Amino acid sequence: MSKTMAQADASTLVRQTRRAARSLAGMSGEARNELLRAAANAIESRTDDIVAANEEDCMALAPDVASGAVSQALADRLQTSSAGVREMAARVRDVASLEDPLAHVIATTELDDSLTLYKVPCPLGVIAVVFESRPDVVPQVASLAIKSGNGLVLKGGAEARRTNRVLVSILREVLAARRPGLEHAICLFEERAHVMALLQMDRDIDLVVPRGSTEFVNFVFKNSRIPVLGHGSGICHIYVDAAADLSMARKVILDSKTQYPAACNSAEKVLVHAKIAERLLPELIHDLQNAGVEVRACDRTRKIAGPAKVRAATEEDWSTEYSDLILTIKVVDDFEDAMAHIEQYGSRHTECILTEDAATATRFLDEVDAASVFHNASTRFADGFRYGLGAEVGISTSKLHARGPVGIEGLLTYKYKLRGSGQVVADYAAGRRKFTHRKKGN
Amino acid sequence: MSKTMAQADASTLVRQTRRAARSLAGMSGEARNELLRAAANAIESRTDDIVAANEEDCMALAPDVASGAVSQALADRLQTSSAGVREMAARVRDVASLEDPLAHVIATTELDDSLTLYKVPCPLGVIAVVFESRPDVVPQVASLAIKSGNGLVLKGGAEARRTNRVLVSILREVLAARRPGLEHAICLFEERAHVMALLQMDRDIDLVVPRGSTEFVNFVFKNSRIPVLGHGSGICHIYVDAAADLSMARKVILDSKTQYPAACNSAEKVLVHAKIAERLLPELIHDLQNAGVEVRACDRTRKIAGPAKVRAATEEDWSTEYSDLILTIKVVDDFEDAMAHIEQYGSRHTECILTEDAATATRFLDEVDAASVFHNASTRFADGFRYGLGAEVGISTSKLHARGPVGIEGLLTYKYKLRGSGQVVADYAAGRRKFTHRKKGN
Repeated sequence: MSKTMAQADASTLVRQTRRAARSLAGMSGEARNELLRAAANAIESRTDDIVAANEEDCMALAPDVASGAVSQALADRLQTSSAGVREMAARVRDVASLEDPLAHVIATTELDDSLTLYKVPCPLGVIAVVFESRPDVVPQVASLAIKSGNGLVLKGGAEARRTNRVLVSILREVLAARRPGLEHAICLFEERAHVMALLQMDRDIDLVVPRGSTEFVNFVFKNSRIPVLGHGSGICHIYVDAAADLSMARKVILDSKTQYPAACNSAEKVLVHAKIAERLLPELIHDLQNAGVEVRACDRTRKIAGPAKVRAATEEDWSTEYSDLILTIKVVDDFEDAMAHIEQYGSRHTECILTEDAATATRFLDEVDAASVFHNASTRFADGFRYGLGAEVGISTSKLHARGPVGIEGLLTYKYKLRGSGQVVADYAAGRRKFTHRKKGN
Repeated sequence: MSKTMAQADASTLVRQTRRAARSLAGMSGEARNELLRAAANAIESRTDDIVAANEEDCMALAPDVASGAVSQALADRLQTSSAGVREMAARVRDVASLEDPLAHVIATTELDDSLTLYKVPCPLGVIAVVFESRPDVVPQVASLAIKSGNGLVLKGGAEARRTNRVLVSILREVLAARRPGLEHAICLFEERAHVMALLQMDRDIDLVVPRGSTEFVNFVFKNSRIPVLGHGSGICHIYVDAAADLSMARKVILDSKTQYPAACNSAEKVLVHAKIAERLLPELIHDLQNAGVEVRACDRTRKIAGPAKVRAATEEDWSTEYSDLILTIKVVDDFEDAMAHIEQYGSRHTECILTEDAATATRFLDEVDAASVFHNASTRFADGFRYGLGAEVGISTSKLHARGPVGIEGLLTYKYKLRGSGQVVADYAAGRRKFTHRKKGN
């Protein structure tokens, strides 16, 4: 297969990143923390440059916002300020103060005299992060990569090009000052053509973290053999059980839907046990509509609420993530009916039961297949900061490696180191030597 | 897209497996161990049936062996005996005696009063194992699936059809006797057409474990979006450093190549530091050829050994896994040259350095990107039994999830359970409540 220019370019840069990352991984935890503190200082001292570049990016985008070609929301996410830059630096210092994720030994097993097996954490190698607009992504993921000894390949949105360039050049200067060549541990791509090139590099990139629309994340899932840390969609359900506290239910549903409707962990569907439907639904729908939520519903719900007040849900509604002030409600026969609905339509992101019955809650938490399963709490709690992870790399709906809100451990793997003194397997196969398999404290 | 018959069949059976697995996962660890002990007893008491079915399979294969259509090695792997069946039962009992992998809580964090987050292990859901000939794979993976609360989809080789049917029916009877319907937790496919159907079921199958040829494993990697636990190839290098003990080097290389050449962890390439090449190579090549190993080599090696004695290696040799008594030798300039060669050609499975220099050994173990990195020990030690894992699910060369020899933890993921009392995020966002994020002992 002949390579395009984009592939050839990308390949050379990414291999350079891989080599520099090896050098980063070989540094002590304290040396990596020093780099982070130097990066935080450099970001602060270059505040004016960053803000100026950002103003240029925002101005360049203004005509497209005015014409409606790009959304105001995107423009808002792009904009930063000197306070925003101070916040970036503070976050980098937070990462410096986290424990060294590479320092501990996971397990030590003596296999025999002078033959010891160590299971140790190590960086994945090279992480690619593909993101849109928000410039604070750059220092955030760069600090996690430096902390964990990984190389970082960034592909930013064209609209944030100037801001991203300044931020990346500051970070690369800090790395180069420490050791010439180390700057290659972070590289930045800007062209759309490079995205496909990067997604093909399954030998040189170990993990892709797509940050963007559901469509984009699904595109990455489908077009790459590189493992992906992300979530295609968040279709989160709240099941209101027959034994629910109804005033708590109204409060939790309202928060789950309206506290930040664009978030992946906001509730999209509510399933209501038939026994309490008549008592809950009129007031719940009133609350929701009062808060500006468009309610769609099944026939049983509409019959209770009055068909004129609530639009009928279509089959498509059950598998749609609105990310907006829209909610679909269904009356279910019982617990099993709710479980079957969630199994069929859920995106295995976050699912919630509201009930005062402890046994039913436990069954739900045990049996629902999702990264986060909640009892009597808003779905909006599914988040790395709220979980206390220190730093969030992303939210994963895949089950392998890292699941749910993922902290820095999502950027690590492990390896087995075996230290021997010339042992051969033939001696053990013939019974001349026996394994001791003694676990040792670490 | 219209589904083929194979897809429709497979889909129905696999969903049934998924439901039964949920019921298995809900049982206590002791109940799952009882199932395993009952399975071991049932296998023993049905020894004659198993051996009779196996004899029929072997007889049916005999003409193909005679004609050379299938290898004698495959026929050997197919055959079992009453001793083999006793061994199967013993292995199932071993799995029963392992610790319950679902019992512990990984981490508990109090987020606030009456709002507690639990990170707990849970089964992946449904595991598909696609294997050839060896009938002992059935009780082995079935016992690991039952132990870990996973559903199991088996696709066996046609040549072992009768043996596999008897084994699966025994296991399903044991499950059904415990609870009607539970037998669906294990299902068996026999047709080649079902392989592609299974590989498309990325929503209902959580992990594929391919056991077969390198070509087949690579086929699975390329044709499925389901995560794969396996290894495409094992191109393991031994680097003999300038500071190596040369008699140890000869011993370890001989074992790594000849102790079981068909294994994925046998050495395929030896890299020799130029400084010791003249002292090591003549004797090493003599040892290897004496043991029936065909040696191929670079020009520098051939010059030292005598070009008539050693065939020239081609570029293809460096990226070929022979799985046979063939070894390729290269003289390298130094440590960096060896590292670059391994980075380019290694399969990230197992890599070894032989040296008496502790600092060089440490650099090699730290910097080489492979699941297992060895110092002064045979590559043949890279194996779940030798590592003391209790049971081996497979060897993985992917970095995410489970890496290297993988025990029962490779069949698990985790979920976050949040137990609250009606908390909403709006209170924390407005500063009316604060997170405590108190880690608790488990």
